Amino acid sequence: MKARFVYADNAGTTALSKTALDAMMPYLTESFGNPSAIYSIGREAKKALESARATIAEAIGARPEEIYFTGCGTEANNWALRGIAEVKAKQGRHIISTAIEHHAITHTLDALAKKGYEITYLPVDEYGMVSLDDLKNAIREDTILISVMTANNEIGTIQPIAEIGAIARERGIVFHTDAIQAVGHIPINVQEMNIDLMSMAAHKFRGPKGMGALYIKKGLYVPPLLTGGGQEKGRRSGTENVAGAVGMAAALKEAVDHMDENIKKVTAMRDRLISELLKIPYSRLTGHPTKRLPGTASFVFECVEGEAMVLTLDSAGICASSGSACSSASLDPSHVLLAIGLPHEIAHGSLRLSINETTTEEDIDYLIETVPKVVEKLRAMSPLWEEKMHGKPQ
Amino acid sequence: MKARFVYADNAGTTALSKTALDAMMPYLTESFGNPSAIYSIGREAKKALESARATIAEAIGARPEEIYFTGCGTEANNWALRGIAEVKAKQGRHIISTAIEHHAITHTLDALAKKGYEITYLPVDEYGMVSLDDLKNAIREDTILISVMTANNEIGTIQPIAEIGAIARERGIVFHTDAIQAVGHIPINVQEMNIDLMSMAAHKFRGPKGMGALYIKKGLYVPPLLTGGGQEKGRRSGTENVAGAVGMAAALKEAVDHMDENIKKVTAMRDRLISELLKIPYSRLTGHPTKRLPGTASFVFECVEGEAMVLTLDSAGICASSGSACSSASLDPSHVLLAIGLPHEIAHGSLRLSINETTTEEDIDYLIETVPKVVEKLRAMSPLWEEKMHGKPQ
Repeated sequence: MKARFVYADNAGTTALSKTALDAMMPYLTESFGNPSAIYSIGREAKKALESARATIAEAIGARPEEIYFTGCGTEANNWALRGIAEVKAKQGRHIISTAIEHHAITHTLDALAKKGYEITYLPVDEYGMVSLDDLKNAIREDTILISVMTANNEIGTIQPIAEIGAIARERGIVFHTDAIQAVGHIPINVQEMNIDLMSMAAHKFRGPKGMGALYIKKGLYVPPLLTGGGQEKGRRSGTENVAGAVGMAAALKEAVDHMDENIKKVTAMRDRLISELLKIPYSRLTGHPTKRLPGTASFVFECVEGEAMVLTLDSAGICASSGSACSSASLDPSHVLLAIGLPHEIAHGSLRLSINETTTEEDIDYLIETVPKVVEKLRAMSPLWEEKMHGKPQ
Repeated sequence: MKARFVYADNAGTTALSKTALDAMMPYLTESFGNPSAIYSIGREAKKALESARATIAEAIGARPEEIYFTGCGTEANNWALRGIAEVKAKQGRHIISTAIEHHAITHTLDALAKKGYEITYLPVDEYGMVSLDDLKNAIREDTILISVMTANNEIGTIQPIAEIGAIARERGIVFHTDAIQAVGHIPINVQEMNIDLMSMAAHKFRGPKGMGALYIKKGLYVPPLLTGGGQEKGRRSGTENVAGAVGMAAALKEAVDHMDENIKKVTAMRDRLISELLKIPYSRLTGHPTKRLPGTASFVFECVEGEAMVLTLDSAGICASSGSACSSASLDPSHVLLAIGLPHEIAHGSLRLSINETTTEEDIDYLIETVPKVVEKLRAMSPLWEEKMHGKPQ
């Protein structure tokens, strides 16, 4: 059955870009110095690290000294939340977030809740959108942190980050955004968007795995999560992953340099994919129809199991995902799909096809050709579908 | 002046081995799948990750399910200490460590001390060796953790880990060892050495930077430091750095497969280096004369500044370090050299030359030729030396 290989799980992880790999190679070979060392190859490594920091800063409208490298996006999220919770504990213990955050946020907030913090999870509408009024109403005297993701990993919905940031800033509350799905894909400017803390992960924009960063607005103190040798100005210890930082910067620069054309191209492909796949009976789009990531096409198909779809698509050469982005191995129903009001049984039939600028029109053709066949095939074997058809003959 | 390039800072970081890089390349190119994904290239990545885990486990006498990947050695150290402190807090808040640990241990213990834990730092003798009697005497009813490094990063002294582990086990106290300098360089068997938790860092044994691991003995629960997607059996979230894990495993296997010959070869080179450099007047070896890492030759030279030595050696093409391993940029006097009883002014004149199996006899010749010249040159400019010579004419 395998006719073609189509990677449509770019929200899960991406292939490292050639530009990024080429930029990394010297630091995986001859330029292996420790950036903390004062001799020549150490200084050379330090220079590469600082250049990477400046590139990343520029891509998001920050200053180089506001970028701190981490080992992954999850570390950036944990550091931001745990750090602010710790340092602001005397001012209050109330944190506002949303019902559709990534588990790196929700599970970390759960851990903080066990330590005596109180978390308000804002609801979202049917498109996964947070309401600014809900946010304003949730703010209390003891609110120390607002954490709202820039774009959702499962349904692609983009939140009104600049407005949320403005509300937080007006009230003097620290504002963190998990921008892991957004950075490199849509324009981000931490100043214009009133962001105090922002998490990034290189492998979501064709950089290497094992590399993340946290933007920390100048003047804001976030105590370290990892203490030790004092790297990253004492805020994140551990010998710096020079190749990783260089690869992250190269990938991000490449993405930002081509962002306008990429958005145009990817959005057009996504919209074609969406409109064609919505022709499947009893299907619906999840997430916002327009305020969504350029590359994310997400659906639910009634009477089909998401996992079965992913496995059947796999045997047709298509990589896709269902449920949560980074933990497709989990069989739990997605908290995001439940939060947008989908009933349990429908949430189980979710499919996310996430494309990027490396996707071709032929890939889209193949997806449009294959996905309906897979849904039809699985429905033909489904007792639920049988029942639905008998109850509602067409 | 530059006649040759000699990298003698392998305790700081190492060049990635060709074997490790070759093993990593597929995972930096076509095999880029997310190990949590259930489609083919995800499963392929998962298989590589689990194979790496098994290789690392075998190299240290552990089981694959006892190896947890981290973003660096510092993260492994932080996780072990902070995790055990948290989970054992009800049993007690006393922790025993030593005066010569790496900052990833001491600074983390300092942070725990601020949270109400009490830390006993065992003293060391003039060779940097911990006394088992001191350890026994320090143990209290409320002692929950003993953390002693396997080998010191500055002076190379190897501690009696099996004996320390036996004492901890007999008293029912968790035993952690920071084995970051030791793994891949001397034989390590977590079972025979009675180790409950052990930190490793790939870049110290010719693996990639940005990759570490924590060995956790089966049955011991260490709460996660990073929460999120539930990777690493829920103990360490974050998309797995597959290439990093594969590189770490390949480098460690290569080191362990050649350990006997490497130890023999490197020890002989180290001893020749030591005996020749000790011919420099007013010099001494730091660390234990025999119970030391094969590759670590460490000295103090009176009336010379360590930093000046490192910079002058650099201009002669030699990479060396002074003071602490991973943060040579720091000007603080080394706590390790002070702990072995060296006066402040002498501790400032430290030099560490750390070699490994890639070092050649010609490199050693060049070090033996160059280091005395550098010391002599710097002393000729030193008022302290002038004074010393006038006070003690030879």
